[in-house]
Amino acid sequence: MHERIHNFNAGPAALPLAVLEEIQATFLNFNGSGMSITEVSHRSQWFDAVIQDAVERTRRLMKLDQRFKVLFLQGGASMQFAMVPMNFARADQTVDYINTGTWSTKAIKEAAIQGRTVNVAASSEDRHFSYIPRELNLTPGAAYVHLTSNNTIKGTQWGAFPETGGIPLVADMSSDIMSRPLDVAPFGMIYAGAQKNIGPSGVCLVIVREDLLSRIPKGLPTMLDYTTYAEKNSMYNTPPCFAIYVVQLVLKWLEETIGGLDAMDAMNRRKAALLYDLLDHSEFYRGTAEADSRSLMNVTFRLPSEALEQQFVAEALDNGLGGLKGHRSVGGCRASIYNATDLEAIETLVDFMQTFARHHG
Amino acid sequence: MHERIHNFNAGPAALPLAVLEEIQATFLNFNGSGMSITEVSHRSQWFDAVIQDAVERTRRLMKLDQRFKVLFLQGGASMQFAMVPMNFARADQTVDYINTGTWSTKAIKEAAIQGRTVNVAASSEDRHFSYIPRELNLTPGAAYVHLTSNNTIKGTQWGAFPETGGIPLVADMSSDIMSRPLDVAPFGMIYAGAQKNIGPSGVCLVIVREDLLSRIPKGLPTMLDYTTYAEKNSMYNTPPCFAIYVVQLVLKWLEETIGGLDAMDAMNRRKAALLYDLLDHSEFYRGTAEADSRSLMNVTFRLPSEALEQQFVAEALDNGLGGLKGHRSVGGCRASIYNATDLEAIETLVDFMQTFARHHG
Repeated sequence: MHERIHNFNAGPAALPLAVLEEIQATFLNFNGSGMSITEVSHRSQWFDAVIQDAVERTRRLMKLDQRFKVLFLQGGASMQFAMVPMNFARADQTVDYINTGTWSTKAIKEAAIQGRTVNVAASSEDRHFSYIPRELNLTPGAAYVHLTSNNTIKGTQWGAFPETGGIPLVADMSSDIMSRPLDVAPFGMIYAGAQKNIGPSGVCLVIVREDLLSRIPKGLPTMLDYTTYAEKNSMYNTPPCFAIYVVQLVLKWLEETIGGLDAMDAMNRRKAALLYDLLDHSEFYRGTAEADSRSLMNVTFRLPSEALEQQFVAEALDNGLGGLKGHRSVGGCRASIYNATDLEAIETLVDFMQTFARHHG
Repeated sequence: MHERIHNFNAGPAALPLAVLEEIQATFLNFNGSGMSITEVSHRSQWFDAVIQDAVERTRRLMKLDQRFKVLFLQGGASMQFAMVPMNFARADQTVDYINTGTWSTKAIKEAAIQGRTVNVAASSEDRHFSYIPRELNLTPGAAYVHLTSNNTIKGTQWGAFPETGGIPLVADMSSDIMSRPLDVAPFGMIYAGAQKNIGPSGVCLVIVREDLLSRIPKGLPTMLDYTTYAEKNSMYNTPPCFAIYVVQLVLKWLEETIGGLDAMDAMNRRKAALLYDLLDHSEFYRGTAEADSRSLMNVTFRLPSEALEQQFVAEALDNGLGGLKGHRSVGGCRASIYNATDLEAIETLVDFMQTFARHHG
């Protein structure tokens, strides 16, 4: 068996080694239950403690006040693309979306399928989604303003969030949830597929404010109505227990080992700076995101040719650095450096990149 | 740490120990990838091999011909309750449902929410869902006939499936999927939350015939359209990778260790017979399902008093026998004896039940 690699996958992505080791050590007998965590009932004391702890850690880490509910859903962020307009906008209302790339575009498509009037309040499509737009054309009285906080494919990220004059922000934070402190006050809803910063695939964290819950129309399909999850502590039906359990352990690690979101943010900034500094001082590598819009989570870059990019990805893997290929829709290279990718991984990557550039530059 | 118990939970439920041990042994480094199975990309060679193998084993075990697609969805069987009428019935069509308990009732409710005309073709509600109805009042030209093949709460199960005159059967087989051989010819769709017979919670197996796929209307939300999963091999978005991986291992165990569905069926019949034989010859225990409708998966029974039932469940757990409490909606006791609950567990339970009856009868 080979050793573990440094994992730069865009998602599913690296998880903290200590979390994986704890899962492994207790996998046949969870917490004295005599059963694997995959075998315990979701109605048992054992799972109840898991989901409660995951909810409470989310509340503490993100400093959520009592107006916010913390829910766990299935179907990924993609399911939320449909549920958000279905739940939070009346049929006659306009919904504002900011288009910063592939995921925003998919969210817009689902709002249109729901028959809502979609106003694209801003878009960075004119320059291949390489930046975060600053000028917004918001609709007065829109049901909400939707944005994607971090764009994995193009490597851009919102720094400060836009002013909306009291209209609730709804954000897909799949790829930067809990990577930095956040003022949740302007947000009506935040959702995040877990498989980048907080867990494995198969569960989507949903944080929703009670005034948005009060908008939900009667008569939605039960499993597509956020009320179902809010009223039953995400256990109307059998939840994805293992995925929620891993999230709980990752949040415990984030709170107790890392020390919370301020400490995580400092580490993430240091990690990203090492890579962007290399890109900024290189004539071999070229970053693809505009400097003021760069992501701290996904560092996207090109080499002088596609042939060199292929060679780079292959040689990196030979050196224990995996997942550096860019998204299939755009090509190039990408280092995804979520919470669980540690400084040592980045330093190893920087060394490799410098060596590769010397040999091929 | 305590030893492992015999697990009679209704779901999430027991998994084969050999499967759990394989997951544990390879958890930090899956198949030489240098990553945990929870960390590999769903677009990688590693996960691709997992999902392909899960699909192919399903096809072989269930003897599916090429008209059937094998899909993996999220949201559990409860999400299918809404998707089935949305996808497979026109707004003006009648859909036939057979009501055999809680899960059928929920499926009927979701079809009504979709605005379809629901004909309850038969119901066993008149005798507290203690039997499988034989007389059906089917609608000529109905879009489909929906049934629940096994009823976990009341402990009933379809033996032979009803004749529908060519109208496709749609079956929720969450609690008996792959517990016995099945002639799939009359079925248009079969679906099953994995967490009873074939895996952990967090993934739903969907087997759908191409003529039903051709009925799907345009303009459904992307994640609620079975076409999305059929066209992208269940990977339009990030699937629940770990849950699919466990399903793959369970199906491998079912095929290679058990020897397929005929062998599994023989074992399951032997297991159930031990318990029903005890109930039939006891003046202390009383089975709740009618004899001709008894489930091979969930054996439901009562004791002379609720106080004795509580004592029974507690003493059983002290003796390493867990999960014997009946569903909270009906009380009593229940032994769920899915594929992974082995003969030794049943024999231990039978011994305990005999001893308990001697002491308290």
